[in-house]
Amino acid sequence: MTKVRVELGANSYDICIGENIFGAAADFLAASNFTKILLVTDENVGALYADKFSGVDVVKIPAGERSKTLHCAEILYTRAIESKLDRKSAIVALGGGVVGDLAGFVAATYLRGVNFVQIPTTLLAQVDSSVGGKTAVNHQLGKNLIGAFYQPRAVFIDIATLKTLPERELKAGLGEVVKYGVISDEKFFNCLEENVDKILNGDAEILAQIVRRSCEIKAEVVSLDEKEIGLRRILNFGHTIAHAIEEETGYEKYCHGEAVAIGMLGAAFISEKIGAVSHAAVERLENLIVRLGLQTHCEGVSVDKMYSALFRDKKTVGGKINWVVMKKIGAVEVTSGVPENIVREALENIAR
Amino acid sequence: MTKVRVELGANSYDICIGENIFGAAADFLAASNFTKILLVTDENVGALYADKFSGVDVVKIPAGERSKTLHCAEILYTRAIESKLDRKSAIVALGGGVVGDLAGFVAATYLRGVNFVQIPTTLLAQVDSSVGGKTAVNHQLGKNLIGAFYQPRAVFIDIATLKTLPERELKAGLGEVVKYGVISDEKFFNCLEENVDKILNGDAEILAQIVRRSCEIKAEVVSLDEKEIGLRRILNFGHTIAHAIEEETGYEKYCHGEAVAIGMLGAAFISEKIGAVSHAAVERLENLIVRLGLQTHCEGVSVDKMYSALFRDKKTVGGKINWVVMKKIGAVEVTSGVPENIVREALENIAR
Repeated sequence: MTKVRVELGANSYDICIGENIFGAAADFLAASNFTKILLVTDENVGALYADKFSGVDVVKIPAGERSKTLHCAEILYTRAIESKLDRKSAIVALGGGVVGDLAGFVAATYLRGVNFVQIPTTLLAQVDSSVGGKTAVNHQLGKNLIGAFYQPRAVFIDIATLKTLPERELKAGLGEVVKYGVISDEKFFNCLEENVDKILNGDAEILAQIVRRSCEIKAEVVSLDEKEIGLRRILNFGHTIAHAIEEETGYEKYCHGEAVAIGMLGAAFISEKIGAVSHAAVERLENLIVRLGLQTHCEGVSVDKMYSALFRDKKTVGGKINWVVMKKIGAVEVTSGVPENIVREALENIAR
Repeated sequence: MTKVRVELGANSYDICIGENIFGAAADFLAASNFTKILLVTDENVGALYADKFSGVDVVKIPAGERSKTLHCAEILYTRAIESKLDRKSAIVALGGGVVGDLAGFVAATYLRGVNFVQIPTTLLAQVDSSVGGKTAVNHQLGKNLIGAFYQPRAVFIDIATLKTLPERELKAGLGEVVKYGVISDEKFFNCLEENVDKILNGDAEILAQIVRRSCEIKAEVVSLDEKEIGLRRILNFGHTIAHAIEEETGYEKYCHGEAVAIGMLGAAFISEKIGAVSHAAVERLENLIVRLGLQTHCEGVSVDKMYSALFRDKKTVGGKINWVVMKKIGAVEVTSGVPENIVREALENIAR
């Protein structure tokens, strides 16, 4: 088991990564002297792993994005009250991004905040949503519009869970992994290029390595800008368009990581058009995305509607979109001065 | 206009206190360059004062505790989205504790946090709920069980609003004012004793003075312990029993401040019984409460049910109640070792 430290002063914590480490997670929970523990999971993950944890109350939510609502949060509050959780109790999220975001929001707001522990079981949650303290639920008018910045006490990432993950979800998670290479580490990007086959075959060693490096990069960025005032925006590379794709397709057609892969290509197109990056770098990104089995275009979308959706993004401030553009593989920058015609061209380019 | 500073590092802010200062509040809002402003108020307060603020979107909630729910929060999220509030926008609470707590919770959680400004218009909100960053909504199983610590950018207290406040609400607010004297300032307690008539007659000068001193005391405590890990608990003097009274009477019979006055007498009884405080000090407290027109006993309550309710309080951890007990007028301490029979005797003593 290796550890990645997220440095956030009094809110610092470790991300523990390894194969078959549920025992270590259970030991941590037992040693923490929480007065009560409510383990939140979904029906799929709960059936596989909930019995690895004893001495906890378990609540299972229906699997899928539709559970990420205030209504479902209210059900969890009720369970927390019924289980008599107090301020020294803990809520544990065992599952993917939906479970982590929802349980995290409940942990942040029940009694104005109780202890929170993340045990992410999808690649996407392991490399992205479980790290950095963003919690949220959806509003019927938009995704993740209600939430809080709230850091966990610890994150336990068991690589073994990826063996039971559907292939499509594994690939989708790789969309976020590729992002880390693009925004800050060319060597890591090279490593991904060199290990495509091993990654897709579920090689535990290489998966542990890429999860670890992804967490390191995210932890570093989050340490420098917890509340997304500046630097943290670079994590948003590919996401402005991805959110528009997801909204336009009703959050059902594409997994988040799939939309991010397409969104990165849209952002790369913009980057090249405004002269920020070479065509060769954009091609390298596209090739890796293709080799990892991710799509490069989205279907059944309206460019006009996607364009409007860009302005509803949480990061859009005063009607101004902050674009994260590529400078090269391993470096990005934020700019708000992208002309409308280039943005529209990028959207037309990724739409089919 | 005078100012009280709440020192909380990067989250520090001023409480501005004066008579007829809505103009100053409006100027502050205009000068802050918020991208949009959503002013939340209730139907009563909104009818009186909402027109003092221009260039803002106004949303009015029904007056009263029943609006302090997740359901009402959801209505405000929808309004915030429809008004296109972004991360540099502001939510302003104009009203009493319900408006402040609810709007504050929405400000804390909409887009993971937007700017928040408090303009409290009841004495209770001015001396208590608007200061210190506690926001909350109620759950059907308990009050304030869902919330966040979230500091405003500024608080504007217009003493002139107290002229339109029903007498009963003014008196209820005095319950919290008396508390500040008991927990940390005997001189302030003396000042209240000496000015009962002026206070009850709504003398603006003395009201400004007691609001200011109350805010100073609360600001000092909150600065030292924002998240209620230790010292802040002293603000809870009288509240453990008050919460039980409120729960047992369905939150309808007694205003919060009225319950606090009775709860303080329960806590004072306990303090005397365990030998922490003299009988003379307890009598002084009771006399002041009576002279301010507040009740000393509650009616129609069950001691058994109130006793059970004590253990559902947010501050009860691991089944242990932390009692704030009087040492003298001007000093309290926290103890968890109060025997059940003394607690029951205190409850019997305040129940009628």
